[in-house]
Amino acid sequence: MAIFNRLKRLRSENASGYSNNSNDTGGRFVNKNGKANVLKRGAPILSRYSWYHTLLEMKLGKFLLFIFGVYIVLNLFFAGLYYLIGIEHLEGVHRGSAFKDFTEVFFFSAQTFTTVGYGRISPNGFLANSVSTFEAFLGLLSFAIATGLFYGRFARPQTFLKFSKNALIAPYLNGKALMFRIAPFKNNNLSELEVKVTMAITTNENGQLRDKFYVLDLEMNRINAMALSWTIVHPITKDSPLDGFTKEDIANTDIEIIIFIKGFDEVFSTQVVSRTSYISEEIIWGAKFKMMYHPNHDKSKTILSLNKINDFEKVDLTMN
Amino acid sequence: MAIFNRLKRLRSENASGYSNNSNDTGGRFVNKNGKANVLKRGAPILSRYSWYHTLLEMKLGKFLLFIFGVYIVLNLFFAGLYYLIGIEHLEGVHRGSAFKDFTEVFFFSAQTFTTVGYGRISPNGFLANSVSTFEAFLGLLSFAIATGLFYGRFARPQTFLKFSKNALIAPYLNGKALMFRIAPFKNNNLSELEVKVTMAITTNENGQLRDKFYVLDLEMNRINAMALSWTIVHPITKDSPLDGFTKEDIANTDIEIIIFIKGFDEVFSTQVVSRTSYISEEIIWGAKFKMMYHPNHDKSKTILSLNKINDFEKVDLTMN
Amino acid sequence: MAIFNRLKRLRSENASGYSNNSNDTGGRFVNKNGKANVLKRGAPILSRYSWYHTLLEMKLGKFLLFIFGVYIVLNLFFAGLYYLIGIEHLEGVHRGSAFKDFTEVFFFSAQTFTTVGYGRISPNGFLANSVSTFEAFLGLLSFAIATGLFYGRFARPQTFLKFSKNALIAPYLNGKALMFRIAPFKNNNLSELEVKVTMAITTNENGQLRDKFYVLDLEMNRINAMALSWTIVHPITKDSPLDGFTKEDIANTDIEIIIFIKGFDEVFSTQVVSRTSYISEEIIWGAKFKMMYHPNHDKSKTILSLNKINDFEKVDLTMN
Amino acid sequence: MAIFNRLKRLRSENASGYSNNSNDTGGRFVNKNGKANVLKRGAPILSRYSWYHTLLEMKLGKFLLFIFGVYIVLNLFFAGLYYLIGIEHLEGVHRGSAFKDFTEVFFFSAQTFTTVGYGRISPNGFLANSVSTFEAFLGLLSFAIATGLFYGRFARPQTFLKFSKNALIAPYLNGKALMFRIAPFKNNNLSELEVKVTMAITTNENGQLRDKFYVLDLEMNRINAMALSWTIVHPITKDSPLDGFTKEDIANTDIEIIIFIKGFDEVFSTQVVSRTSYISEEIIWGAKFKMMYHPNHDKSKTILSLNKINDFEKVDLTMN
Repeated sequence: MAIFNRLKRLRSENASGYSNNSNDTGGRFVNKNGKANVLKRGAPILSRYSWYHTLLEMKLGKFLLFIFGVYIVLNLFFAGLYYLIGIEHLEGVHRGSAFKDFTEVFFFSAQTFTTVGYGRISPNGFLANSVSTFEAFLGLLSFAIATGLFYGRFARPQTFLKFSKNALIAPYLNGKALMFRIAPFKNNNLSELEVKVTMAITTNENGQLRDKFYVLDLEMNRINAMALSWTIVHPITKDSPLDGFTKEDIANTDIEIIIFIKGFDEVFSTQVVSRTSYISEEIIWGAKFKMMYHPNHDKSKTILSLNKINDFEKVDLTMN
Repeated sequence: MAIFNRLKRLRSENASGYSNNSNDTGGRFVNKNGKANVLKRGAPILSRYSWYHTLLEMKLGKFLLFIFGVYIVLNLFFAGLYYLIGIEHLEGVHRGSAFKDFTEVFFFSAQTFTTVGYGRISPNGFLANSVSTFEAFLGLLSFAIATGLFYGRFARPQTFLKFSKNALIAPYLNGKALMFRIAPFKNNNLSELEVKVTMAITTNENGQLRDKFYVLDLEMNRINAMALSWTIVHPITKDSPLDGFTKEDIANTDIEIIIFIKGFDEVFSTQVVSRTSYISEEIIWGAKFKMMYHPNHDKSKTILSLNKINDFEKVDLTMN
Repeated sequence: MAIFNRLKRLRSENASGYSNNSNDTGGRFVNKNGKANVLKRGAPILSRYSWYHTLLEMKLGKFLLFIFGVYIVLNLFFAGLYYLIGIEHLEGVHRGSAFKDFTEVFFFSAQTFTTVGYGRISPNGFLANSVSTFEAFLGLLSFAIATGLFYGRFARPQTFLKFSKNALIAPYLNGKALMFRIAPFKNNNLSELEVKVTMAITTNENGQLRDKFYVLDLEMNRINAMALSWTIVHPITKDSPLDGFTKEDIANTDIEIIIFIKGFDEVFSTQVVSRTSYISEEIIWGAKFKMMYHPNHDKSKTILSLNKINDFEKVDLTMN
Repeated sequence: MAIFNRLKRLRSENASGYSNNSNDTGGRFVNKNGKANVLKRGAPILSRYSWYHTLLEMKLGKFLLFIFGVYIVLNLFFAGLYYLIGIEHLEGVHRGSAFKDFTEVFFFSAQTFTTVGYGRISPNGFLANSVSTFEAFLGLLSFAIATGLFYGRFARPQTFLKFSKNALIAPYLNGKALMFRIAPFKNNNLSELEVKVTMAITTNENGQLRDKFYVLDLEMNRINAMALSWTIVHPITKDSPLDGFTKEDIANTDIEIIIFIKGFDEVFSTQVVSRTSYISEEIIWGAKFKMMYHPNHDKSKTILSLNKINDFEKVDLTMN
């Protein structure tokens, strides 16, 4: 294809972290959530996962369920131990059916684990006391770890940037440009943002599939502060790897636009990064974004409408 | 106006994070506290706010009230639950009027939530025990979160820099300069400070209002250590966007001087930033700052007088 | 030796942090785990060790044992105190043999230290109460410190990079290259990786041993993202300090390849570093790495096989 | 003086953070511990101190005493409250003398504050219960804050670098050099160290005292890793502000050598800085450092002797 021949003249990017002389990888490179589309194998699961990274990135609801599940399981385990030692070594238990007995033991365990220790039930004898001594210790350590996890989760620096769902091929000056849009959606302050856009394309050289990477030049690749929305623009000039692409070329080629953004979060005082990608079917030919902010009624503030981030209108590109 | 025509010759700054080809924003760009003067809409409030950022930046008194409020509300909720389950399932309650009963239940709830668990009152039966098992768990997690919040608040890196209330147009060499002053007001150590000053101006081009941004050149834009006060000086030379401005031009034009400072905090070992702005009415024509430090009585130390940060004296600029 | 004479023409690296004009050091410079192979003496042990760094880097099992050990020792200490004060000052103790008495006191101590405070046993009198007042305080502080340690341990930024066990002398273009391989083995995201490789060699200049350091040029010294494996390649050109080395030269000379890698962890939002070294016997002459990743069955993902990181095949270098 | 005339030809450093056109400061600029020798006045003490920075930098013993003091004072306060409410509202108190009563109340308070809550004594009635509900809440929050403080203290990134007590004027090549020495004294790993040395000198220009700052060129201003000791060398060449200084000039002039070091701590994964200064009387004329490391007995490791950091021998400089 002509577009592949053109690409040979352009300098490709070697430092993508992916091989660009082969086609040994499968599917998109970067998932929509910014993670590499790679599965690790050949090592036990526990050594392949950082449980801390995993718990940090888990959805809140799932995380809370997990914490609560651990609490219940540990209490069941200790309740089992006390039950084995003998319920007569717990003073003050209201005896009843085996189930009633077990619930009493379970609640005693919970009172020990959380260190609430009402004392209506209390351990008696060496074994029961030893187990409760250990359980209270474990309980406090567990909550110490939970403290760290909660802090790690909510103090985790994030960009809180929203990306437009689509990238557009829009009119730009006398030609065309690839555009996508980002906006800050929380009350954090980002400064000194930098964006880097790479295009991955699977080329067909004499019947051999190869992945090639190209850095896309941007009209502006850094801004001082992220206050409103920012439309990132790659002008499709003669030097662009997208030059000469038709609507059909984009649809029929294996293209992936990989975005990497970094900035400085002023509250966390640390650098934050964000990553995503657009693949062929997420690129819309002939469209431009609509404004997503306007002054408020008395012109004293600016209103940024987050729900309009992907609002675009179709335009005819035949003249561009 | 002549000043607007002059500005056309100067290169304006594109990377401000604000649009500089339109006038679609309202009011000042940066609030005095450094936040962008932007309201976000079009998304549910909870997704527009990072509660962690919010609680970190909340005033201390309000924050403590919030924490205490959550404690009371949760205890009322659990007290309600125990009350519904039946006060007879709490052993040891001193019965009395309905109100007295409820307070006993409330205090039992607090003893459970904080895990103090005196044990004078203790739960009895499956439901009351289950609720208290959950409440003690929730209590410990709540304090885990509070621990994180407190740590996040006081370990939050800040510049602790005080800005002069006004920016001055002061005599400088044979001409004039825009000056403002910063001073460190706490016992932290800042090093490698850098300052960037941008001027926003609403120009009137053939009746059309446009926001333009200009980077202001500084006599010195970085210092090694922030020990005393630092007067930041923008000399108004031929290349300055402020060249040719009269006292009236400044008063009558929509000017905003946007300040961005970054430095390294040596105790927190991290980069910190500060941001503020001066608008037309905060710029004083014909004034210069007075010294704000002097040696102590035996010349063994330097005294920095923080209350003098905005002390200036009026000077005549007609000769400059 | 000829190879030493060659080296004299090359610019050596002064900034290694080791002296390169003498031979006053012993053994390898950098241990396999990245630590400098240096023992510190001449200061008390406590001032030579940061206990926090030590506890952070301790193996998990050892760390947990240490924490539990401290818990037991402190409880024994306080149990001793209560015993000295007199067991009659603890109400509710079930008396028995001296051993039985001591265990009761020990368990009371544990109930105080963990603040579980069942209350079956409670202190009575000024001394016992004072000690328990202090013990509960110390207990909470101990768990505060444990909280910090646990958080410090699992929130400790690490590269989670696996290095190939060997460095290879492999065919490269028309010549040879020194190669080693790294791969990310956990679910963290690293970006903007940079690698720096230094070679240390003990040269014999007129019978005098000297340590010399040389920076090795790399085919590529940075990549944008660490998604798959990365083979780091030092081409052995005319300018390489390894030029002219035979298999025997490498085996018989005191060579150390020192690796320093830094990157940005996207979850922790911080820079992380990794360090290791290869000495003569870890360098294999005439071998090349086998591929360690391939597409999955439906070509929608890439599989990275961590167990293949050191897989190589022998090759004949006589032609290179 | 001739040396002052020479200095006029050299470019002085403007960005020191101190004024270099006046003599409005007193004493040394940087204290031995790296803090600016500045007192802040003109603002209430609480707004001049960051209590967090203060508690972080407090000596450990003093810090522990402070924490314990707060614990005692808060308990005395709450004991007073319970006493005022009436001891009869605390069930289970062993009554006695007024002092005995107060100690019982105090111990009850401590049991509440730490949430140990044995329950031998428990509150009764609305007021006593309300106070204890608040006290347990406050207790947990206090320990939450203590957790943060302990973590902040021991997780505080520090360089753990030891400086030689003196700077030396030592022989160097065919001339002289100013030298001082640093060594890592803990088991942390520092990489990419950079050092910046500035000389402050009070010059006498026509009877007017002025502070001037000069950046001193170094033989090497960065090293890759801090493994052994590092002697930092400023060669006294024709371009050095110290050129032409005699032993007496140094002794009689107000000289201060200000050191700023930054590096990357590999365990904390963050940049750390260190700062100190040498004044005239700490500079020794005619001396050179002795080696402070040597191989161990079997040459498998290097021994760094921290107690030798300031070991030097006198040398005659008349020939240099």
